[in-house]
Order: sequence, then structure tokens, then C-alpha cells
Amino acid sequence: MTPEAWTLEQIHDHIATSLPLASLFNITVLEASEVRGRVRLGHGEHVTRSGGGIAGPVQFALADVAIYALILAARRDPAAVTVDLTINFLRPAMTLPLLATASPLRAGRRLFTAEVRITEETTTRLVAHATGTYALSA
Amino acid sequence: MTPEAWTLEQIHDHIATSLPLASLFNITVLEASEVRGRVRLGHGEHVTRSGGGIAGPVQFALADVAIYALILAARRDPAAVTVDLTINFLRPAMTLPLLATASPLRAGRRLFTAEVRITEETTTRLVAHATGTYALSA
Amino acid sequence: MTPEAWTLEQIHDHIATSLPLASLFNITVLEASEVRGRVRLGHGEHVTRSGGGIAGPVQFALADVAIYALILAARRDPAAVTVDLTINFLRPAMTLPLLATASPLRAGRRLFTAEVRITEETTTRLVAHATGTYALSA
Amino acid sequence: MTPEAWTLEQIHDHIATSLPLASLFNITVLEASEVRGRVRLGHGEHVTRSGGGIAGPVQFALADVAIYALILAARRDPAAVTVDLTINFLRPAMTLPLLATASPLRAGRRLFTAEVRITEETTTRLVAHATGTYALSA
Repeated sequence: MTPEAWTLEQIHDHIATSLPLASLFNITVLEASEVRGRVRLGHGEHVTRSGGGIAGPVQFALADVAIYALILAARRDPAAVTVDLTINFLRPAMTLPLLATASPLRAGRRLFTAEVRITEETTTRLVAHATGTYALSA
Repeated sequence: MTPEAWTLEQIHDHIATSLPLASLFNITVLEASEVRGRVRLGHGEHVTRSGGGIAGPVQFALADVAIYALILAARRDPAAVTVDLTINFLRPAMTLPLLATASPLRAGRRLFTAEVRITEETTTRLVAHATGTYALSA
Repeated sequence: MTPEAWTLEQIHDHIATSLPLASLFNITVLEASEVRGRVRLGHGEHVTRSGGGIAGPVQFALADVAIYALILAARRDPAAVTVDLTINFLRPAMTLPLLATASPLRAGRRLFTAEVRITEETTTRLVAHATGTYALSA
Repeated sequence: MTPEAWTLEQIHDHIATSLPLASLFNITVLEASEVRGRVRLGHGEHVTRSGGGIAGPVQFALADVAIYALILAARRDPAAVTVDLTINFLRPAMTLPLLATASPLRAGRRLFTAEVRITEETTTRLVAHATGTYALSA
């Protein structure tokens, strides 16, 4: 018996509860399905560095949450953990909100790998690209 | 004429001012020289996820700051920016403080690459390994 | 004055001459433009491991050549060198030919970053994904 | 009952048989234990690119074989497969032989992660650094 799919609201609530950073940075889940996880970094404190750019660790958090939302929708596995993540910072991210969209590359029995594109919502410019692998608990 | 070396205090103050996340997460710079950047993640709010482990983005921030401190000491280049970073989460990081030690792999004219080992201070267990490349501004 | 664009034939000949591995593995350049580099791994010796799968280093070579062809078309910079490359082997690659398609993520003044998707030509299955950064010589 | 340890000769023979590229490139296994895999790229055809440097895919192969030798010694698991590998090319590798030394970062039940340093044997200069994760079959 496959466990029942999580609703977007359940996914959002689980992330807000289990990852305090998501709330701290004002990250919200916009969409989560078997083929896509989509999250937004809204306006907020803490996320910029001097000069006004959005800090790298915040973009990392955004990519990580986008993949986690995708895994929750595709596998209902809240105990999945990040094995490794590679992030390329392509150009300065200067304008909030940012959008991160995760797409599956491998949906295996034990490992889940996804790529993430991070864009500025208003300009649609690509600011970062990430690839991450997660270990599934099942 | 080579610009004068930054003192540890100057490096610490520059990071505290320019990277609000460093203060938010309670990251301090312990040591910075041409061959080593060493930073500590102390006790604090915001850094754990449910279950008690230290969140991945916080470890990413720690690795990023360790390399930045190394670059400030070795190159006095506050405008250096992260090009890409790969992080492997090797085992759950359960106990604060964490220590991150960055060592140079390439100290080129335009690119600086370093590796970082993150350990739990009390157990000395290795919890994460990162490799990052930065573009120098000079 | 921008140097004149290289033709596909010039790109193919340059790669065959400067990268003996490309000929050894039977890698040919199918397409090269500012937005796409596309190469094929044809039938040949040396490329499989026991069990019949196409060896990881051969897939790495294919990704590397796809990005190099893209850079030759987009930047006419034969002296570009690989800074780093991350490759994810998503599932066994069992059937030749393989196709690798490189797309630009960053086309900067000093750095060029691209992603590559490697598929089996006949099944169209995605077998590997890579992200690579190159230092431009100009 | 733990399977018996493989001897260096068994590891060398297994690699020579199962990875035709290792022989093609003249890669030999110098040492393999639970804490270290050490391999050498000797003189040979096919491994240079124009200009005389050792080609990136050959260095990738060297890193991959070093980790595989380490896993054979530490886990006796010939069916281990590469999940992902990140390689940084730090400076041109101009002089053969090259040495690659792999050290374990994670020796888990399902995943094995190692880092590799590639040096020129005669100059001892570090030319590349890699980090790779392998899925164990057991």
C-alpha cells in the first residue's frame, strides 16, 4: 500500500515546523508534485550581505528546501537526508523574491537526485544552479 | 606593493559586518593565515532542525565563511565571490560547537579553491567536507 | 573586432587533433552553437567496463568535450581549460551511442559554466548529468 | 562472517580485468587498505592532450580507480558503483607519472565517500582534487 500523497499544505507545514531556517528566511512552498518542487524566498531580514546581494547560504537553503519539497511530494519521506549538494553561483542575486525550481534527475529506491534552478522572480534571470543527492529512509 | 596583512580582529570585524548570517548563527573566526582559515559555530538559535541536528545550510555557511576568512588572510580581497561549492554531509552533526577548517588547494591569480573539514569540537568527528572555488577581484 | 565564428567542421577538426581521447573513444561533434554543444559517443573499443556498461571516465570525457565544443562555438577560445566538473551517474549506460548535450549556465568574461545531459540515443533515457566550469583565456 | 580481505594482487587483477581503461591508460594499483587507495598513471599513449598536459578524463579515471581500489580493500565490494564525482583541476599536470591517493570520508553501510589528491610523482605538486560517492551493493 502506497502511503497517501501529502497535500501542499501538509508539505508546507512540515517544512515550517522541521526547518526553522525556512521560516526565518521567509521561504514558502509554492508547488510540490512528483516532477517539480517550487519554493520562494520572500522579502525578509537576514538574507542579504553587504552590497545588497542575497547571501550564498540563503540560496543554498532555498535549493535544499526545493528538493526536500519535491521528495516529500514524490516519496512522502520526511526522513530523507542530504548526501551532497553542488551549487554554482552564476551571477549576483540582487532582487527579491527568488524562485527555486527542483526537477528530479534520479528517483531511485535509495537515492534521489534533483537539479535546481534559482531565478529572480521579477527579472527571471538565472542566478544559481544546484544539483543535490538525498538518501531515502525507506 | 603588497597590501598589508589583515589582523584576525580586522577579518573578524569585516565578516561580522558584511555577512549578517555569521552573527545570526554565532559564527566566529578563530584563526586566519595564508594556509588556514578556522571558524567556529557556537551555541545559538536557528541552527538546528527538528531532531536536533545542525541544519545543512548552516554547515554550508560555516564552510563558506571558513574559506572567506582564508582568502581575506591570504589575499586581502574582500570582494572575492563564491563561484561554486560542493558539500558532502557525511554524518549527522548533533553537537555544538562545530569547527570548520579551510585549507588552500589553488591560490591562483583569478581563482582560489579550498577544501573544508567540519568537525564536532567535543567529539572531533568529521561531519562534513566541502570544496569551494572563489573568483578573486584583483 | 570579434573573431569569426568557427564552423562545425573546424570545431570537429580542432577537437580531433587536440584531444586524442576524442578519436580513441569515437566521439564526434554533432552540433555547436552559442546555446548548444552536442556530441555523440559511437560504437568502439575501450569504452565499456565488465558487465557491458559504458565506463564513467568515458562519460566524463563526453561531457567535457560537449562543453568544450560549446565554448569553441560561443567564444572561439581553444585555450579554455576545465576548472572543475561535477558528474552524477544516474543509471547504468548500457547502449551505445550516447548523446551529450551541453547548455550554457554562465557565459562570463572569465568563466564559462555549462550543464550537460547524457542520454542513450536509442532509448532517450537520461544516464548522467554534469555541471562544469571553464576558465577562459581571453 | 566477514569476507576475507583481498590481496593487492587480487585488487590489481580485478581492476585490470573489469576496467579496460585502467590498462589502456597504464594505471597500476600501488597500495590498497581500509584507509588508503594509491594508484599510479605511468607513461603511455592516449593520455596527453595537445600542449602536453595530461587530459582531464584521464585524471578522472585515475581518481575513480583510486577510490575503487580503496573500496575493494575496505569493503570487498566489486559491485560498488560511482554515484557522483566532483573534480577540481588545480594546475596543469605536465609530467608523468601521476599519483592518486584516496582517503575515506564516509564509510557507511550503503554509501562510501572518499577524497582523492592527484600529484605529479617527481615534483610532488598537487594537480587535482576529487571527491566521490559510491553506492555499495551489500
